[in-house]
Amino acid sequence: MITLKGAAVSAKIREEVTEALHEFPGAAPKLAIVRVGERPDDMAYERGALKKMENFGLQAESFSFPGDISDEAFQAEFKKINDNPDIDGILLLRPLPEQINERDIEHMISSEKDLDGISPENIARVFAGENEGFAPCTAEAVIEVLKANDISLSGKRVAVIGRSMVVGRPLSMLLLKENATVTICHTRTRELEKTCKDAEILIAAAGKAKMIDSSYVGADAVVIDVGINVDQDGNLCGDVDFESLNSIASMATPVPGGVGAVTTAVLAKHLVTAAKKRRGSRK
Amino acid sequence: MITLKGAAVSAKIREEVTEALHEFPGAAPKLAIVRVGERPDDMAYERGALKKMENFGLQAESFSFPGDISDEAFQAEFKKINDNPDIDGILLLRPLPEQINERDIEHMISSEKDLDGISPENIARVFAGENEGFAPCTAEAVIEVLKANDISLSGKRVAVIGRSMVVGRPLSMLLLKENATVTICHTRTRELEKTCKDAEILIAAAGKAKMIDSSYVGADAVVIDVGINVDQDGNLCGDVDFESLNSIASMATPVPGGVGAVTTAVLAKHLVTAAKKRRGSRK
Repeated sequence: MITLKGAAVSAKIREEVTEALHEFPGAAPKLAIVRVGERPDDMAYERGALKKMENFGLQAESFSFPGDISDEAFQAEFKKINDNPDIDGILLLRPLPEQINERDIEHMISSEKDLDGISPENIARVFAGENEGFAPCTAEAVIEVLKANDISLSGKRVAVIGRSMVVGRPLSMLLLKENATVTICHTRTRELEKTCKDAEILIAAAGKAKMIDSSYVGADAVVIDVGINVDQDGNLCGDVDFESLNSIASMATPVPGGVGAVTTAVLAKHLVTAAKKRRGSRK
Repeated sequence: MITLKGAAVSAKIREEVTEALHEFPGAAPKLAIVRVGERPDDMAYERGALKKMENFGLQAESFSFPGDISDEAFQAEFKKINDNPDIDGILLLRPLPEQINERDIEHMISSEKDLDGISPENIARVFAGENEGFAPCTAEAVIEVLKANDISLSGKRVAVIGRSMVVGRPLSMLLLKENATVTICHTRTRELEKTCKDAEILIAAAGKAKMIDSSYVGADAVVIDVGINVDQDGNLCGDVDFESLNSIASMATPVPGGVGAVTTAVLAKHLVTAAKKRRGSRK
């Protein structure tokens, strides 16, 4: 079984970004990361994103707010960031605390700065399979992993486990755009093992530690693990029991070091696309 | 094989609408049908919708414009209809002629009057599986046919053939909302017969006359035909060769007289929902 490492995919995307940066003789594209509160997950993701932007030659700035900020105050702050002409793209760490109306922010964010596809405009574009617009970075990272490894999608039977708006649903539409035949599975799916086993490409985005073992995997299938969980020993693990696939799958992504390593690279790619469009249109 | 007739489903929806009309002591909810040009398909659909609204005790008015109306002039006219406080909902017959930017209209239409789910806001809501918002009427008509006939969806294997934004994609999301395991098939799907045969419920929305015969249908499957085509003899026919299913399917919808008969009933239901929301919110 071949291990599909995220680092190699990220390096390919870095080349594309570096090439595109020649088009920015002035300031490099700039990302705003918006965080409310101090959830460890958010802070880890923020550190990773800041490091990746620096490594890719891009600018990034963190905007953090206290966890008890009022809805009104946060909306005012978010509006300032959204309107700031120096900022090309925004990553909002979610979920937001309960007192903040997330729906209002989804409507407020400029679709051209919405790098993680949370605005209705971008959601509708992903659903329709359009070329314009931004899909959620994690969903797109899966496509990048498959493409970078020359795994064709057209006509293939692909099973996606999970139907969230962050991964399962948008990813299903991105796969459909690549002409895959997509089956969307979830907690209510009956005979999940059988359905998964029939897939040529299996994508686990269920959010349940190591739920997928060899009994779900067909011979020579490609297995992509989008899960990020903590196992009983406190270690990071995916939705897939990676070791168990060894004699059955043809290729699989590890966790950590798989899809997760590509997500912030996709964010960087989106940032460059957003900057090109915004700055181009101001000429 | 049981024939699932649309008329019975439409009658059930009529009862719901009649019941809901008690909440409108003043003017009945009013639909605007907007047509550009004189395509026979559009005019037939318009006649059907006007008749259905009258039959359901609802108001409807046609707004028709010459096929060569300019983009600017049409936008101005559409804005008037959209802003008209006497109109509770709008059905725009599409596609529009080439000179008109359809995308602009999708953005202009108030999501609360957008009964056929063409605005980004409603598309995003359908994609996310929310309860608010309007799905395209034809897609929702399929769900109504299944529900009215007590065909459960939870956990069922459902194959949808077709991935348009009018039927295939939104219908897949409505099925997912009902907890079906959905496989989206299309022209690039390999082994289409096998995939379809494995489904407990098969939905044909491919737009190809009689392409689905018994070789695509599993034993005792339910077959829903969304196609409206004209066969070589000039007769209306579906995507399914209905007669061929007799010894294999458990139930199937005919064309004409199946899903098509339910679409305008769903439009009426959406109109009442829109009117309730708008008039309620003005209190």
